[in-house]
Amino acid sequence: MSIRVQKLFEAIFTLEDMREIYRGSVPKGLDKSEERAFDEKIAELKAIISELEGDTGTARITKIADSIPIRSREEDFINIQPIQAAGRLTPEARKALAAYGDGYSTCDACRKPFRLDKITKPGIAEFHADLASYVNMDVARVVPGARRGFQAVAQSLVAKGDSVIVSALAHYTEFLAVEGAGGVVREVPLNEKNLVTPEATAVKIEDVIRETGKTPALVMMDHVDYQNANVHDISAIAKVAHQYDIPILYNGAYTVGIMPVDGKALGVDFVVGSGHKSMASVAPSGVLAVSSEWAEKVLNTTAMTGDLTKRKFGIKEVQMLGCTLMGGTLLSMMASFPAVKERTLHWDDEVRRSNYFIDRLLSITGSWVVSEYPRKHTLTKVDTTGSFDTVAKTHKRRGFFLSDELSERGIIGEFAGATRTWKLNTYGLSEKQVHYLADVFIEIAEKYELPIAE
Amino acid sequence: MSIRVQKLFEAIFTLEDMREIYRGSVPKGLDKSEERAFDEKIAELKAIISELEGDTGTARITKIADSIPIRSREEDFINIQPIQAAGRLTPEARKALAAYGDGYSTCDACRKPFRLDKITKPGIAEFHADLASYVNMDVARVVPGARRGFQAVAQSLVAKGDSVIVSALAHYTEFLAVEGAGGVVREVPLNEKNLVTPEATAVKIEDVIRETGKTPALVMMDHVDYQNANVHDISAIAKVAHQYDIPILYNGAYTVGIMPVDGKALGVDFVVGSGHKSMASVAPSGVLAVSSEWAEKVLNTTAMTGDLTKRKFGIKEVQMLGCTLMGGTLLSMMASFPAVKERTLHWDDEVRRSNYFIDRLLSITGSWVVSEYPRKHTLTKVDTTGSFDTVAKTHKRRGFFLSDELSERGIIGEFAGATRTWKLNTYGLSEKQVHYLADVFIEIAEKYELPIAE
Repeated sequence: MSIRVQKLFEAIFTLEDMREIYRGSVPKGLDKSEERAFDEKIAELKAIISELEGDTGTARITKIADSIPIRSREEDFINIQPIQAAGRLTPEARKALAAYGDGYSTCDACRKPFRLDKITKPGIAEFHADLASYVNMDVARVVPGARRGFQAVAQSLVAKGDSVIVSALAHYTEFLAVEGAGGVVREVPLNEKNLVTPEATAVKIEDVIRETGKTPALVMMDHVDYQNANVHDISAIAKVAHQYDIPILYNGAYTVGIMPVDGKALGVDFVVGSGHKSMASVAPSGVLAVSSEWAEKVLNTTAMTGDLTKRKFGIKEVQMLGCTLMGGTLLSMMASFPAVKERTLHWDDEVRRSNYFIDRLLSITGSWVVSEYPRKHTLTKVDTTGSFDTVAKTHKRRGFFLSDELSERGIIGEFAGATRTWKLNTYGLSEKQVHYLADVFIEIAEKYELPIAE
Repeated sequence: MSIRVQKLFEAIFTLEDMREIYRGSVPKGLDKSEERAFDEKIAELKAIISELEGDTGTARITKIADSIPIRSREEDFINIQPIQAAGRLTPEARKALAAYGDGYSTCDACRKPFRLDKITKPGIAEFHADLASYVNMDVARVVPGARRGFQAVAQSLVAKGDSVIVSALAHYTEFLAVEGAGGVVREVPLNEKNLVTPEATAVKIEDVIRETGKTPALVMMDHVDYQNANVHDISAIAKVAHQYDIPILYNGAYTVGIMPVDGKALGVDFVVGSGHKSMASVAPSGVLAVSSEWAEKVLNTTAMTGDLTKRKFGIKEVQMLGCTLMGGTLLSMMASFPAVKERTLHWDDEVRRSNYFIDRLLSITGSWVVSEYPRKHTLTKVDTTGSFDTVAKTHKRRGFFLSDELSERGIIGEFAGATRTWKLNTYGLSEKQVHYLADVFIEIAEKYELPIAE
């Protein structure tokens, strides 16, 4: 870790120790021994800041709670890990987390009717309305991850034995959500461009109806799939689903929070997004947005009455299990949200930078893109069998030579050891960073004398 | 907010802005404009620290992301809010959160077989083993809140129409979990001491069998109920459940993380705990621990195969939906865990302090305890109808007079406006803090000339 980043962490940690002194005190102020402990911590803090300023010193703290290493991958490196890029926190989210990390921190001003999405201090109710409007749907709820959104919809709509239409590239969490509800996934094949087409979706629906005698209960479709990050024509697929009166869930784990998503224009019934994957939020977090047509069904409130006490908890939503994100997860989503809305407007720049990098990579002869090209997304599957893998074949570190070369130059997040097909994500990199990244790949190629096209 | 606490937050926020400069840079170091921005922030930081030291200055920052107020309830006040006490983070958890707040921060070293509980860097696999051993069960998983533990068990064990035995004081999330699985709750009545007895449980089971012709699918029982925080005899209730071959889920939302829990000694099949309620962790978090007898059933791995691609995701657990807490939530649990284990050993001191406070409150004539007394827990329902409510009756602020008087003295977390029955929690307060708290109540009583017994 660079010494300055180390010192940034140490300063934060020291400040947390100082907060703790206040937490252990009585409201009338610190007593003498607390005051002394505080003074000692201030002295420590000033020493750390002096080291920070001078870019000197050595690590005073290396483990949190004696066992957890400090994570500085985002500060010390450029991280191209496929699923981490758009989930890294904004500074505002980190500040919110410092202030709202405590367990039930959202619940200070919880008043009747006692439900998370009704709380106005902090502005959780307003955030829910903003979220719905952000994806242009009628109602939104926060959920512990996109998968919990899939689960809520599957549990509500899918009965035992029902078929659910998914993509041949459906994420495993869709499989599990359907399985948990007792349903069966039925995959739509891809065309030669690795895309799900509306035609193939219609054929699959027809097949299922013919085979089972029953219309599928749900279509779940990834706008951008996790394998190639290709962009599928959800709008046309939604039309097909609706021709058969099947509701459609839009899996926006790789879209909501980074690119504009308009649920109504797409014609979908449910929009699911991931907080920790694409909304710069703490895990597990996500959003389930619903059209008013389906809100009552999926966000049904409890009808259960205690047989003895006659207790009812009428406002609590069954699939949400009441409140969902009661603290730091939600506040990180909220604090990132203004930046998330803003960055959505600049998606074209992100795609441009993605293509810039890919073009530079493709200039290394033998490199290919498995994903559709030109790229419409920042996540890309590349194939370097004809370039870097030729080096790996004879290198004593095998495929790890590439990881070594990358990490030496401050790049991490590739799948260590993989030199054939692997994924990377340039989301969030600045112009300068993406140039640096591309230069590094060219530099490594040159070092190993791989031919480079001009 | 006290100026020092304000300055602590401002210093943390400034350090987060400085981290962000590193996040936006390239690995070879800061460029000139970044260096300049960094220097400016250092100057700002030093000014803040000088204010911190001098206990002077005014607020430079009041809102996070322009809308979220800084939360300083734990630093500036003594917080007796019933559900927040044992969920407030340890300083180690706050440090872990600073380092691991980013979305998928747990996934840096995720390797085959690609499941959260198998990750060894950081030590997530070891933590899972420690968690199981902490509650003396065979297997443990982290879940997004205790409610998601109830849900996982209910979905696995409860079929449509099945009865589930719960307490007449069951938490609403148990109702919802049962309802979501299609089951029906059947409540065991309380005895005159507001306790669930094994006898009453047996009678209820018999009633259900007689009425429905079917043995209940599950018993879900709160060791400590959320209303009175009375301690119910789970061990005896578990024996009854097992006499009817019914598995029993132990709801430890108010026990796991604060008092010793031995699942095997209690003879239960499932132990569920809450991270944000009782394990000093970020919400939503919790634990589901299972005996080996039931592990295969509740932690079943997926059996779903893609009909077209023949894809299988064999290691993923259906009810967990794969990975559960992929970042800051889990790391806060892990970082707090050594302190949580340690504090569990001192539960008797917590109970003693709880009784100390309650005894002082009871000295104000007309005050009563609704919960069992002497207290066996730090959460207590009190009845001040005969004391503080007599003041509220004629006070122009009504019941809010008590909130006003308390907050003026640095106490918060009571249910604002309530002067009849209300709940409070002394968990985590030091000797000094609990004395201060009791003194405040006596002082307010004296101010309003309420009689006080010696």
